[in-house]
Order: sequence, then structure tokens, then C-alpha cells
Amino acid sequence: MKERPLIFVTNDDSYFSKGISVLIKLMMEFGDVVVIAPKEEMSGKSHSITSMNPIRIRLFEEKKGYMGYILSGTPVDCVKMASNRILKERKPNLLVAGINHGSNASVNTIYSGTMAAVFEGCAEGIPSVGFSIDSSDKQVDFSFCEKYIREICAEILNNGLDNGICLNVNFPAGEIKGLKVCKQAKAYWQEDMVEYVSPHGGKFYMLSGVYHCLDNSPEADYNCLQEGYATMVPMHIDFTDYSSMDKIKNRFENVQKK
Amino acid sequence: MKERPLIFVTNDDSYFSKGISVLIKLMMEFGDVVVIAPKEEMSGKSHSITSMNPIRIRLFEEKKGYMGYILSGTPVDCVKMASNRILKERKPNLLVAGINHGSNASVNTIYSGTMAAVFEGCAEGIPSVGFSIDSSDKQVDFSFCEKYIREICAEILNNGLDNGICLNVNFPAGEIKGLKVCKQAKAYWQEDMVEYVSPHGGKFYMLSGVYHCLDNSPEADYNCLQEGYATMVPMHIDFTDYSSMDKIKNRFENVQKK
Repeated sequence: MKERPLIFVTNDDSYFSKGISVLIKLMMEFGDVVVIAPKEEMSGKSHSITSMNPIRIRLFEEKKGYMGYILSGTPVDCVKMASNRILKERKPNLLVAGINHGSNASVNTIYSGTMAAVFEGCAEGIPSVGFSIDSSDKQVDFSFCEKYIREICAEILNNGLDNGICLNVNFPAGEIKGLKVCKQAKAYWQEDMVEYVSPHGGKFYMLSGVYHCLDNSPEADYNCLQEGYATMVPMHIDFTDYSSMDKIKNRFENVQKK
Repeated sequence: MKERPLIFVTNDDSYFSKGISVLIKLMMEFGDVVVIAPKEEMSGKSHSITSMNPIRIRLFEEKKGYMGYILSGTPVDCVKMASNRILKERKPNLLVAGINHGSNASVNTIYSGTMAAVFEGCAEGIPSVGFSIDSSDKQVDFSFCEKYIREICAEILNNGLDNGICLNVNFPAGEIKGLKVCKQAKAYWQEDMVEYVSPHGGKFYMLSGVYHCLDNSPEADYNCLQEGYATMVPMHIDFTDYSSMDKIKNRFENVQKK
């Protein structure tokens, strides 16, 4: 009998978010599931690691085919704890992160703890996918996403992913028109540091911001998501801009010679 | 008379590290300098932002052509504070981050708070460069790097950088054989979650690890750095893997249709 696949699940919204519970339910249809998720919300923690402080982990739930741990650290810490301790003896067949409450399309990728876990899995050679929904509603209805998640994960469990490639999948909230394979939309956040007066004297700031899309392309994930499509972007963690290598070599030729 | 350039300096080792003081000294040769740097060490914080807690900033030093602020947050918070508050009226001509105590070559880029500040600057349209030295010695000798930093920054102040491109520059500790324009070396960290017994009962873990280079290419930054060269990698923040778009489209065709 073929061994059931081993699926590792994490997120950045914490073990106690609705999004991860939906993802766990779906993954249990496919195989044995091990979850290590942050105890606290870790949104916007990107690829942070906890290197100077203790990391604690606790087995929170255990049942047939399921182990659920909570960890006092970041999403990337969760992946590292999996590969170095909890799943040291057996590499997962699939890493899924999410379902994130909030879009990780476009430039959000670089701030996202969810996608950081996916990149970490990718660096470690595990087929890895991040799922996010374009809503910050903690009780958002995930039912429209379910069949997409099932089909995407079935495909990856059957055929893997090329080494160094991972997937960033985003869903609109509500009805979904279909799935589009996209590129990361060019954009930036026009931040606002909102100023407050402290009751203890002095000022403090809270970070807020407005998203600005700079990309008109019909293949840009943000645009497709706005139109009601689920989006899938193949991503990698080599940040080299190969297209400008020659130009940069020419420009810094004199510096290179010395 | 031509206006002196405005140079923004930040790092992740904190305002009180030797690396940033060297960088500040060099940048003051070129123009007016504004520093916003973390109060605490923020290594390994990657692209973290502080969104749920107050951010505090204090003017720590002021002299002719120089303003130095310390901020209770991450390197990316420092950049956002600059663009939204301190330098709202005038965009810097150059953003430099570092000099980081520790290499940010290869996969280290994705964990680095220094390079995150550079990516943030790049997203905001500022010519941005990160400098790091391959030594964790807090008192390392930076004198060999100085002429490279001067020449690189002079070139960028004269000719800018293409939109969406930033630079990741790493120096060996000690004598430098020259500068090479490189690609990000493929590698991973073989982490070790070192287990300890707490005096309060229970266990905790501290994250450690060993770097594994997977790249034999003579153009890989890690390899050139090991050979004694300074390395420069042109980078971007579009993580899309364009080379696998068609393959991914074909593989997920059935999912797309629904």
C-alpha cells in the first residue's frame, strides 16, 4: 500500500485563525498532516528568524493522522523547527501556508510571513505553496476557494514542483471566475506614519498605508484578483536581476579592475 | 551652485554599530546625510514591518549636514519613516544600508534586514545599495572597503540606478582582490534547533545553522567572496519566475478553466 503523503501546514495569522483551520481540513483529505504555526499573529514578519531569543514549541492537538504544534516564533521559525526537529526523519511531500487573511498578491509578497514560510520550504527543497484570500475579515467565507486548493494540491502531490520554484496563490473574497497564472504586479505602498501623542508624553507613530498598483498588464496578479480571478504566480528566491548584469558590469568596470 | 546630494543611511545592526559609523563618515564626503537606524539590533528581521505596535523616533545627533535618528523598529520601518515623515519633502538621491556586520551574499539576502531596507528603497524609487562585510567581529577593520564604497556611491550619485534595480555589495574581511559583478549563489542553511532545558522547567530551542553552498558557478557571489573579491549583485523585487510561466500554465490548465 502506498504511504499516505505527509503535508506540513503553517501560516502567519497564528494557529488559532480560521484560514489555517480550513487549510488543515482540506489537507487531511490528502494525507497525514503536521502543523507548526505561530502562537501569536505574525503578519508582516516577512522572512524574520528568531536567532537571539529562545523558541518554545508545544504539542497542542494530536489525533489520527494529525499533529498540531504552536510555536513562539515566526513562520520561518516554524519551517525550520519542522525540518530540524519535528520532521527531521521525513521530508514533507508538500508545504502549504495560509490561508492568509489578506492578499499576498503583488508587492505584499515581500512583507508576508506566509510567503516567507513558502520561500523557506522552497529553499529546503519542499514543494511549497502559499494561499491567501483578499479579505481581512477574520470570519470570511473560504468555501469558494476549497475546490481550487484541492485541485492545486492534488496536482502538486502528483507531480511535484521544479526545484527552486514555489507558488503564490491568491483568491478573491466570494465567487471566483477561474484561475489565472500571473506575474507579480509592480506596486508600492504609500505609507502613512500616523502621529499620536502618548499619555506618557512625547509622540508615537502607527504605520498605515495605501496600496498603489503601477502595473497595467493583464497578467499582473493584482489586476486579475481585482477582476474576480484566483491568481497563481510561480516564484523563486534568486533575486538576481540577470537582465542588468552586463550593464552593471560595464558601469562598474573601473571599480572592478582595482 | 549645485545642491549637495541627500543621502539616507540605515542598517540592521543598530545606530550604535561600527559598520554604520564608517558608512556615515564616507557618505558625509558626498553630501548631506540623514540617518534613521534601529535603536536595537535587528539582524535577521528581513522585510518585517511594525504594524500593530507604536513606533518611536528620536533625534539623537545633529550637526552641519547631518541628522541622526534612532527608531524603535525594523530597518524597513526606518525607510518608511524617512519617506513619510523625516524626508517627506525631499527624496534622497541615494539610500545606503550597512555596513552590515556579516555577509549578505547568497541566500542570506532573504533574511537580511539590511537588504530589506534596500529593497524598500528600491520599491520607493530611490537608488539603493546594501554594503556588508563577511565578518561578525564587531570591531572588524573596514578600511579595505572604503575606496570601493566611495567609487560605487560616486558612480550611482552620478548616474542613478535603473528603476526597480538595487545592488547587494559584499566585502571579504581584510585585503580585497577587486570587485566582481555576480549572481546570488544558490545555497541553504542547514539549521540546527539546539535544545536546552529551562531553569523554569520545560525545554526551549535556540536557532543555529551551517551554510551550504549549492552553486559551483564562478559568477556566484558566495564563491567570489570566498576567493577574496568584493561582490556586487544587481537585484530586483519581482519574485516571479518567468521561465516557468508556460509550464505552470500548462500544468494547471484544467484548474484554470473552471
